[in-house]
Amino acid sequence: MNKSCYTQKNIREMEDRYRARFVNSLSGYKSANLIGTTDDKGQHNLSIVSSVFHLGANPPLMGFIIRPHSVERHTLENILVSQQYTINSVCQSIFKSAHQTSARYKKEESEFEKVGLTPILGSEIRAPYVKESPIQIGLSLREHTTLSVNNTELIIGEIQEIRVQDDALNTDGSIDVDSLELVAVSGLDSYHIGTRLARLSYAKPDSDLMELE
Amino acid sequence: MNKSCYTQKNIREMEDRYRARFVNSLSGYKSANLIGTTDDKGQHNLSIVSSVFHLGANPPLMGFIIRPHSVERHTLENILVSQQYTINSVCQSIFKSAHQTSARYKKEESEFEKVGLTPILGSEIRAPYVKESPIQIGLSLREHTTLSVNNTELIIGEIQEIRVQDDALNTDGSIDVDSLELVAVSGLDSYHIGTRLARLSYAKPDSDLMELE
Repeated sequence: MNKSCYTQKNIREMEDRYRARFVNSLSGYKSANLIGTTDDKGQHNLSIVSSVFHLGANPPLMGFIIRPHSVERHTLENILVSQQYTINSVCQSIFKSAHQTSARYKKEESEFEKVGLTPILGSEIRAPYVKESPIQIGLSLREHTTLSVNNTELIIGEIQEIRVQDDALNTDGSIDVDSLELVAVSGLDSYHIGTRLARLSYAKPDSDLMELE
Repeated sequence: MNKSCYTQKNIREMEDRYRARFVNSLSGYKSANLIGTTDDKGQHNLSIVSSVFHLGANPPLMGFIIRPHSVERHTLENILVSQQYTINSVCQSIFKSAHQTSARYKKEESEFEKVGLTPILGSEIRAPYVKESPIQIGLSLREHTTLSVNNTELIIGEIQEIRVQDDALNTDGSIDVDSLELVAVSGLDSYHIGTRLARLSYAKPDSDLMELE
C-alpha cells in the first residue's frame, strides 16, 4: 500500500483547518465523554471531550486535556472553583446531543437545556451527571497543570463514585463497552460504534496468546 | 436501565486484577498504538500503549503515559537517551502481534523479532517504524514529566514526520480510520474495530447539526 510522507515543513504549511483535521486524526479512535460541572451560581455546564485517559487504578485516577481559550473554558473555570466534576460516557443514542455541547454557548446558558440532556445530582459530587449516559463517574480534582509546550491544561481527578449499567459489567470486572453502544471519536467530528474482535490473554514471553471467553 | 453505584470504599476493597480491569474500562474506547524506540546499542524496542492522545495541531504534539516499573520501562529509557521515538497505529491484521509486545521480554531482546513485526528506518528519526502499520509518526521528545499523583510518566513529543496510507486521506485532511481497519482497545485486553455512524458539522449555538458527506 502506498504511503505519503509529510515533513514538519509540509505540516506547517497546511491550511489551518486542514492541519487540525489531519493531526487530530493521527492517534486513531478516541474516547467520547461529557464533562459535567457546576458554577458558583449553581448553573450546570456540559462539554464533550475526546482526550479522557486512564491514569491508574489504585488510587483510581483519570486525566483529560482542555485547550486554551476553547469553549471548554467554562468547564475549567468551574472545576477550579468547585474542585469536582463528572465524566459521562457518550453512547449512540446521545452522540448528536453530545457533539452539540461543543457549540460556543454563553456562560449563563446550560448546555444540558440547549442540547436536551438531563442533569442528575448525586450526594457525593457537586456536579451533575448525565442521566442518559451508561457510565457516570464523579471525580475530585487532584492536579491541574498548564503544559508549557502549548499552554493546554492537564486535569487529573480521583474517582469518588461510579455508576455503571448493571448488565454490561462482566464477572471479572471488565465492562462490555460494545453492549453499552459507547461511541468513539476520530478526528474532529467523526463518530463510530465498535465491534469486538477478541479479548486476548495476558501476554507472556514464551506462551501463545489465547482468546478469552 | 439499572445502574450499580460504587463508592471509593467499594473500589478500594476490590481484588487488584478486578479493580484494574474495571477502572481501565471506564474511559471507553482507547487508541491502540505501538511505540518504537532504539537503545544506545542499536537494539530496537516496541511497546503497545493505549494512552496516546492529541495535544495540539500547531505545533503538532502528541502525548502518552508510561506506568512506573512497567514493561514499557525500556521504552522510556530509550526515549530519554535518544530523544526520539515513533508512534505506529495498530490495525486488525496486526493486533495480536501488537498485544504480544506487552510481554515482559528482556532488554536485549527485540519485540519486533519476537512478535513478527518489521522495523523500518527513515532518515529523520533515530527509531524504527512498524512497516505493517498504516499510520507511522516520527517524534522528538519535547517534555517528560513524572506526575506526582501516582508517579506515572507523561511523555510529550513533537511530530517530525508522518507516513500515512494514501487512500485513507480525505480531501479535507481527515483520515478515514475505519477504512484502515484501525483497532480500538477497551479495558486491559479487548480489541474492537469501528464502524462510522456519521461525521457531524461544526456545532453552533443556533443552528442544527448536519451530517457531512
